[in-house]
Amino acid sequence: MGYDFVNPPRIGIVGGGQLAKMITLAAREYNCDVVILERSQNSPSENLAADVIYGDWDDPTKLLELASKVDVVTLENEFVDAKSLKVLEENGDTLYPSSKTIDLVQDKLHQKKALSDAGISVMTFKEITSREDINLYAEKIGWPIILKARRNAYDGKGNSTLHSSEDIDSAWAKLNGDKQKLYIEGFCDFKCELATMITRGIDGQIVNYPVVESIQKNHICHIVRAPASINNKLVKKALELATKAVETIDGIGTIGIEMFCTKDNKIILNEMAPRVHNSGHYTIEACECSQFDNHVRAILSLPLGSTRMITPAAVMINLLGEKEGNGSPVGIERALEIKGAHVHVYGKTTTNIGRKMGHVTAIGSNIAEAENLATKAASLICFGEQK
Amino acid sequence: MGYDFVNPPRIGIVGGGQLAKMITLAAREYNCDVVILERSQNSPSENLAADVIYGDWDDPTKLLELASKVDVVTLENEFVDAKSLKVLEENGDTLYPSSKTIDLVQDKLHQKKALSDAGISVMTFKEITSREDINLYAEKIGWPIILKARRNAYDGKGNSTLHSSEDIDSAWAKLNGDKQKLYIEGFCDFKCELATMITRGIDGQIVNYPVVESIQKNHICHIVRAPASINNKLVKKALELATKAVETIDGIGTIGIEMFCTKDNKIILNEMAPRVHNSGHYTIEACECSQFDNHVRAILSLPLGSTRMITPAAVMINLLGEKEGNGSPVGIERALEIKGAHVHVYGKTTTNIGRKMGHVTAIGSNIAEAENLATKAASLICFGEQK
Repeated sequence: MGYDFVNPPRIGIVGGGQLAKMITLAAREYNCDVVILERSQNSPSENLAADVIYGDWDDPTKLLELASKVDVVTLENEFVDAKSLKVLEENGDTLYPSSKTIDLVQDKLHQKKALSDAGISVMTFKEITSREDINLYAEKIGWPIILKARRNAYDGKGNSTLHSSEDIDSAWAKLNGDKQKLYIEGFCDFKCELATMITRGIDGQIVNYPVVESIQKNHICHIVRAPASINNKLVKKALELATKAVETIDGIGTIGIEMFCTKDNKIILNEMAPRVHNSGHYTIEACECSQFDNHVRAILSLPLGSTRMITPAAVMINLLGEKEGNGSPVGIERALEIKGAHVHVYGKTTTNIGRKMGHVTAIGSNIAEAENLATKAASLICFGEQK
Repeated sequence: MGYDFVNPPRIGIVGGGQLAKMITLAAREYNCDVVILERSQNSPSENLAADVIYGDWDDPTKLLELASKVDVVTLENEFVDAKSLKVLEENGDTLYPSSKTIDLVQDKLHQKKALSDAGISVMTFKEITSREDINLYAEKIGWPIILKARRNAYDGKGNSTLHSSEDIDSAWAKLNGDKQKLYIEGFCDFKCELATMITRGIDGQIVNYPVVESIQKNHICHIVRAPASINNKLVKKALELATKAVETIDGIGTIGIEMFCTKDNKIILNEMAPRVHNSGHYTIEACECSQFDNHVRAILSLPLGSTRMITPAAVMINLLGEKEGNGSPVGIERALEIKGAHVHVYGKTTTNIGRKMGHVTAIGSNIAEAENLATKAASLICFGEQK
């Protein structure tokens, strides 16, 4: 018996955004139909999916409906309530990663605790329940500190950097501290931010992608340079840390690990995402098997593929919305003329400031060459024009 | 105004086989929905298509129905009757390549005449209408000669090599000479067979892929080695010939050109296919933009992408059916373990001797390394087991 390409397994994805789209494109190589569960129409993966269920990700009824149509359910984000996901497992449905993994990751305080308990270096952190707590703890570890929402924070949403006690009230108000659970973290004065993707199979087999450097702009991933310009010793340390972190949360599938490299060359785990990740988009063009391909292989119990880079360097630049408006890109034809640059546009119908609308990956014989091409192509594209 | 990723053009493909499947996967990157016209259910591209029309490719009603659902129609084979296709153009529908191109190519005698008239080296050829013609002409140019069907021949079907006048009767019967139009060609005692893919835009812009060597087995493409191990002078000659041939037939989109390299280093055009081609499958993994990507760009009037190989060498091996039976592959898991080999299975429900069921492409630092990986992976997969 072999993997059945004629009657292949069907994959359900909770969420229909660009990550679901890229997972779906990878799944198609294995002839798999994909069904997505998404809240509204016209999501980026809608026209690729064999079927779409409209509904709330957290609604157990909708999740069960999704599971009933597929052989395995996976996620494109970590914001689906773990308790709702658990209903699938209790119903005997297959879910990767598990609700337990999501539970550990989606509450960032729990995530930090689990990682810290496993001996993984993280920034010092503390649960807080009042404004007074913040001041008390900050005085102990020293300003600045970062106030964070425990749940549903991404791309800088739900984070606030406090430089002194004078910042407490406004940050508390901004993060809605009276209603939302918060925690604080020490501020990392890093030399650079690193990331890697790890894919872990159901049987525990693990492959890791190169360590990359990510440059954030307004807390949103802006540029990813692969591989990172750090020495082999640091690469080894980063991969050891990331692997341990994935095992700690018992991750299945592709998992994103964001790290800091401090000025004294310590590697500190920043955050994990139990899913394919923006910092791994470059793998589509630059690696033998992309993060999406390996995610599909993992959840289908297929052997994991090679993560080797097939080009000396790759640079990815996100295409972010710069205003509100129509989601169609302007300038795409000129960008497609840049040889070596690969343009991805997600097909979102509307744009907004900071919204991830697409990305460009360029490959080259070195980082500077790739970055030059990617920058050139990305600079030609904009979103938000009224047509 | 830019290319509209939110309301992208829809593409119609006449035929739903593996070539349509790979065009569809490429079209999805531009957010395009694809509609296919195919004779029966469960074609390889069926579950990727937004819509399927069942019917005969040559039926103008079905072709018009296809065209009414899309913005541009293209083909995955050259066997659709050019007269039927012309109806689309007369109806004001957009068809690339044009019915004129298909007309020139699908009758191999016309193809040879057009190419020869344009000064392109082809093997000597002659229309024949009787068995006597064969003997007369063969005596003139010397045995062996090849008797060929003018239409609908592929993978050695419709060809017969005749070594003496004694072979005439059986070949005539095999090719149904009483009913089918035939012609003869001189036999080329080649050193190697070469191929290249050329993509030509609507505005006449042209990009060419590397020249590759193809090894046939029982007249079916078996192995493709990219790039071909020939000197630069021959590469240049081959590309000049191929480019001229594409311009001669006014080809739009990706066009396959098969050539002979003779023992005295002459390049002779063998056959053209006005579509993406088996000898260009390696471009998916080995080139910046695949032949499928560039085909989509061409028919959508987008700038053509780079055809540069991003790896020193790539080898593709076809996965051919070896018996009748179930189309699901056996051994796929083990093949997926071969790092560097990329397994493509088309998802055909049944197999047959010589049927193209999939292919494997391996990349490497040289041909030997890539071929070793591809051979290893391909040898692990078989089709036709009864389950």
